[in-house]
Amino acid sequence: MGGELMSDRKEFRDLATPEAARAAIDSLDLSPAPETVPLEDARGRVLAERVDAAIDVPGFDRASMDGYAVRARDTFGADEVDPAELDLVGAVHAGAAPDVTVEPGTCAEISTGAVMPDGTDAVVMVERTDEVGGGADDGDPDAEGDAPDRIAVRTAVAPGDHVMSAGADIAAGARALGPGTRLTPREIGLLSALGVDEVPVAGKPRVGIVSTGDELVRPGETLDPSRGEIYDVNSTTIAAGVEEAGGEPVLYPHAGDDYDEMERLLRRAADECDLVLSSGSTSASAVDVIYRVIEERGDLLLHGVAVKPGKPMLVGRLDRGGSEESGDRAGESAYVGLPGYPVSALTIFRTFVAPAIRGAAGQPEPATATVEGRMAAGERYGEGRMRLMPVGLLDLDDGDRPLVYPVDKGSGATTSLVEADGVVAVDPDTEYLDRGERVAVQLFSPDVRPPTLLGVGEDDPALNRLLDRLDSPRYLPVGSREGLRRLRDGVPDVAVVAGPTGRDVDAVDLGGWTREWGLVVPEGNPDGVTGLADLVDGDLRLVNRPTDSGLRRSLDDALADLAAERDESRRALTDRIDGYELTVRAFESPVRTVLAGDADAGLGLRETAERLGCGFVSLGDQPVSVRAAPDRVERDAVAELADALDDLGGAAGDDGKPDLLADLPGYSRNSRNDP
Amino acid sequence: MGGELMSDRKEFRDLATPEAARAAIDSLDLSPAPETVPLEDARGRVLAERVDAAIDVPGFDRASMDGYAVRARDTFGADEVDPAELDLVGAVHAGAAPDVTVEPGTCAEISTGAVMPDGTDAVVMVERTDEVGGGADDGDPDAEGDAPDRIAVRTAVAPGDHVMSAGADIAAGARALGPGTRLTPREIGLLSALGVDEVPVAGKPRVGIVSTGDELVRPGETLDPSRGEIYDVNSTTIAAGVEEAGGEPVLYPHAGDDYDEMERLLRRAADECDLVLSSGSTSASAVDVIYRVIEERGDLLLHGVAVKPGKPMLVGRLDRGGSEESGDRAGESAYVGLPGYPVSALTIFRTFVAPAIRGAAGQPEPATATVEGRMAAGERYGEGRMRLMPVGLLDLDDGDRPLVYPVDKGSGATTSLVEADGVVAVDPDTEYLDRGERVAVQLFSPDVRPPTLLGVGEDDPALNRLLDRLDSPRYLPVGSREGLRRLRDGVPDVAVVAGPTGRDVDAVDLGGWTREWGLVVPEGNPDGVTGLADLVDGDLRLVNRPTDSGLRRSLDDALADLAAERDESRRALTDRIDGYELTVRAFESPVRTVLAGDADAGLGLRETAERLGCGFVSLGDQPVSVRAAPDRVERDAVAELADALDDLGGAAGDDGKPDLLADLPGYSRNSRNDP
Repeated sequence: MGGELMSDRKEFRDLATPEAARAAIDSLDLSPAPETVPLEDARGRVLAERVDAAIDVPGFDRASMDGYAVRARDTFGADEVDPAELDLVGAVHAGAAPDVTVEPGTCAEISTGAVMPDGTDAVVMVERTDEVGGGADDGDPDAEGDAPDRIAVRTAVAPGDHVMSAGADIAAGARALGPGTRLTPREIGLLSALGVDEVPVAGKPRVGIVSTGDELVRPGETLDPSRGEIYDVNSTTIAAGVEEAGGEPVLYPHAGDDYDEMERLLRRAADECDLVLSSGSTSASAVDVIYRVIEERGDLLLHGVAVKPGKPMLVGRLDRGGSEESGDRAGESAYVGLPGYPVSALTIFRTFVAPAIRGAAGQPEPATATVEGRMAAGERYGEGRMRLMPVGLLDLDDGDRPLVYPVDKGSGATTSLVEADGVVAVDPDTEYLDRGERVAVQLFSPDVRPPTLLGVGEDDPALNRLLDRLDSPRYLPVGSREGLRRLRDGVPDVAVVAGPTGRDVDAVDLGGWTREWGLVVPEGNPDGVTGLADLVDGDLRLVNRPTDSGLRRSLDDALADLAAERDESRRALTDRIDGYELTVRAFESPVRTVLAGDADAGLGLRETAERLGCGFVSLGDQPVSVRAAPDRVERDAVAELADALDDLGGAAGDDGKPDLLADLPGYSRNSRNDP
Repeated sequence: MGGELMSDRKEFRDLATPEAARAAIDSLDLSPAPETVPLEDARGRVLAERVDAAIDVPGFDRASMDGYAVRARDTFGADEVDPAELDLVGAVHAGAAPDVTVEPGTCAEISTGAVMPDGTDAVVMVERTDEVGGGADDGDPDAEGDAPDRIAVRTAVAPGDHVMSAGADIAAGARALGPGTRLTPREIGLLSALGVDEVPVAGKPRVGIVSTGDELVRPGETLDPSRGEIYDVNSTTIAAGVEEAGGEPVLYPHAGDDYDEMERLLRRAADECDLVLSSGSTSASAVDVIYRVIEERGDLLLHGVAVKPGKPMLVGRLDRGGSEESGDRAGESAYVGLPGYPVSALTIFRTFVAPAIRGAAGQPEPATATVEGRMAAGERYGEGRMRLMPVGLLDLDDGDRPLVYPVDKGSGATTSLVEADGVVAVDPDTEYLDRGERVAVQLFSPDVRPPTLLGVGEDDPALNRLLDRLDSPRYLPVGSREGLRRLRDGVPDVAVVAGPTGRDVDAVDLGGWTREWGLVVPEGNPDGVTGLADLVDGDLRLVNRPTDSGLRRSLDDALADLAAERDESRRALTDRIDGYELTVRAFESPVRTVLAGDADAGLGLRETAERLGCGFVSLGDQPVSVRAAPDRVERDAVAELADALDDLGGAAGDDGKPDLLADLPGYSRNSRNDP
């Protein structure tokens, strides 16, 4: 039998229910010990225990107005016509100890916040008093003089008036904040008032992330695609998710294909962390290492969950004590193995693991973690197990819930991470979700905000600049034809279409531009390419774009014209073009293929050829237009897009922004933009 | 005239409108330069510029299934009955360079993620193949053997099947993330896929916080209440708010009453920061320093805003370049002076300053920053200027918006910070907000969560333990009588009542306990106090509790009984008690007064006396009961409270929690708790 392949084909005979998976994870103890942090680092943390006031606030009877501190009894009966006159014996200011005693018949000037001097029990606001006698010159109110001798009080005050008595804000011994309180600026304020500069908070669970997979390389390091290497997406994504959930991620070095080292790292992570995560490896040997470590020194609680994509999920425990670094951490660490594809790993993390980390950190689930949406179109299901369906959102800003549409690019596309906003849990019994049906979307992060505009269609450098000017748009470069199809199906706001499309979709043209297209050739055009005939008749290797692309449609039209000239079929011509079927994904890709020496000519734009230092053989201009779904034209986000399109061409600069087409070789306004 | 007082009485003749204040702040430039941060520190930051893919992802044609890499053409026509047989020429695994070339009629074993070997253009899933010949023993499927010679392919595949072509996820040159994108775990995932380990992000505006006010002491330092010192609340609160809004707070050392130093610090802060904040000082001299600095080296844009509490607000600019530390920071810093009272400072910060910091940091306003609520009772206004009214929230969890009730403890109470959840902006023209009216509440922090339970009433140590067991309750210790009044008025869920109340309020008794009360005396009872008669007839000084307190009611009842015995009026007795009118705030306060030597006896609990090491003269037991508003009894949070009350007395321990009354001297279950 085929050795390694077989271990990948292990049967998952008894898939656990999602509830059982939750119960298994809940049975693990991830809770770290509480810790004490300085107040300035406490924001966002959760109190581990109650904080009682250790002091009275204020710590003294405090004047809460500017005025005169008096014995209230001395003012009884005073009013505007018959003021009480009191001898002024001194002044007290905030932050100073009073150096006066107020005997009956006297008063002291006092500032807000100052200590009430002995003998006083009330403050008369300065507005209700007059100065009498002393150096004050009654005839000239601006004259500066000595302090007055006496003060006329034109109102009666009661004991306690305009005084905050000691402990009146909060008294020593009183409960200030309860355990489990999340510390936001205001709680930090109250703790400051109590003089607290260190707070007992719930610890952050340490979450070790062990990267498995021979082909993974950490971002920033050099990648060798010829060896099938790819950048490690899950470690950094999950680390950020751990942090967001209130945990402390610990990234362990990548062991590559050194399985002994991987085993050592797993044991070390168990010793050092409250939870160890790994994400599914495509390498059977790596999976075998994980099994071996769990079997030798732990417990496998669960293998495989009846939820798509939870089939490869593992839940278990790892005993501690097997490495030098273990120190005094006894007991065991929790272990969860996540699927390998990034969206699947984040989905399972968000659904099963993040709640456990939050629980251990004492953090509540953020209110924004889940939003309600409505299905943009009907969707059929019936897979017999729960589906965690990745979906994108579009907030139409019409007072209704955002639109929800499935995103399933499959095959582990990392771009799905940002094309989907979260997942909808579709019950195994659900066979159909109707258009308009309400669904709960568990966002990938509480900070995810649905885009305000959804565009689809051609990729284009001027379009990229246009998108940069909008507030959180989402654009899916699916090509012109596919873009128009999606526009017709009702999800996106706009489609960007280049060249001829052969489709007639009801849409409103918001404007656009013209771009020069042709054949991109090596610098200096070594093969002397002059046009399409050289491709058909010569010995050149082409790199093409897919049929959904507007560039490809223009190329095919030009080939049809050439075929007609020669009285041949287009097919006859294309059969003679080496590489006609070799298509690459984005507008820059053919140019890069030519630069790499893997093709003699590529279908592309003058802009890209010049920017990347290639030669260019022009084959024509094609219009690019931005078309809006008729029922979305009035939306603010679409209007914003239309406004940005107005910055095209020579009239720009009024708003200080550079022309969208500035310095883009081969670009010009199209006729729609003419005044 | 009275010198310093006069500067405090400065007239604010031309208060700016709130809109003008916003415009003034918007006119300031707080934006820091973009910076580059490592990917692991990028979560929560905002991209400063577009990130395009610099590489193809994947960087090679990648198998997306386990199986056999083939030339699709070789499988054309194959099906279950007539499989295509291909020679097996080798194997390719993920993370390894293929060392085979697949010629027509041959195939290679391939793992998911591996590089497609030269010559192949499709993968046949292993499930659709059989091994033929070689070491495989067809009779015994478990037998291990050599790799087979040939593979029977039972299906036809098209070019590209189960292959993710190079750049199909995202191609080099394609727009990956736009400027202004907030980086959550998923964006970090995409950046990782692109190999990016450093990202250009919007800088964090540096916000200097200068603490003014002679009386302020930083938390953690020693406080001298006799000098009128209080802890500095605003600096830490506002620093946490700055951080939350995406800024980097810089706390400058407190200059105390050294005005030259304060001036130096203000200039230094302007040199080093994008924005300088100070909060209103009660000290006229400190305000004068700020004026002087702005006048000499800046611009005062605005002084006083027609919004309560925005009257003391200042907005201006401070020129840079006046200190050694300024380095190459030219231009000017923004300056905003906040009011002095903590709730006012946080309100003005949240309303006017935080949006500006967020704007400069490129951060969106969090969705949770504002919630809709309904007024719990009618409220009258009409102050002629906009009111930013501090309010508390109570989420009744009944599907309706949370209840909103005003919190106005006045006089700069720091406890208002946690008793209020946010502010409602009441228009100058609004004279009345009706009960049930919808209002928008701007939360003090996007992380603020309304409490699930609101209790009011007596303060009590057993109650504190009870509250610790609940999930985010809010309890206002307003005393038994005031608690019942509020319960009757319909805002809180429960009132906690101790002793006789003299009020008849419709409520459901959820349970309670009995506590022993009496006179707390110094350790060893040096004055030989035996009962109330000693207070009336002796020369002792008492410290009392306010009339709202249940303890005071029991004391007054006992005094009435003594008066009846003696055939005197109660008033006649209380007039003879020195300190009868001296009331202190919380249950521990009288004991602390006795401990400080400021009284010979205090009204208090046996629990507190024993805990703090005082003597105790018992005067009786009083019941404490938790009473719920009848229309709230069914609420989950109230039921949770009732459950926690069941843990009283001997029957506890079933749930592993200690008895609520354990180790509380003088506490016992009351008759309601008997089975």
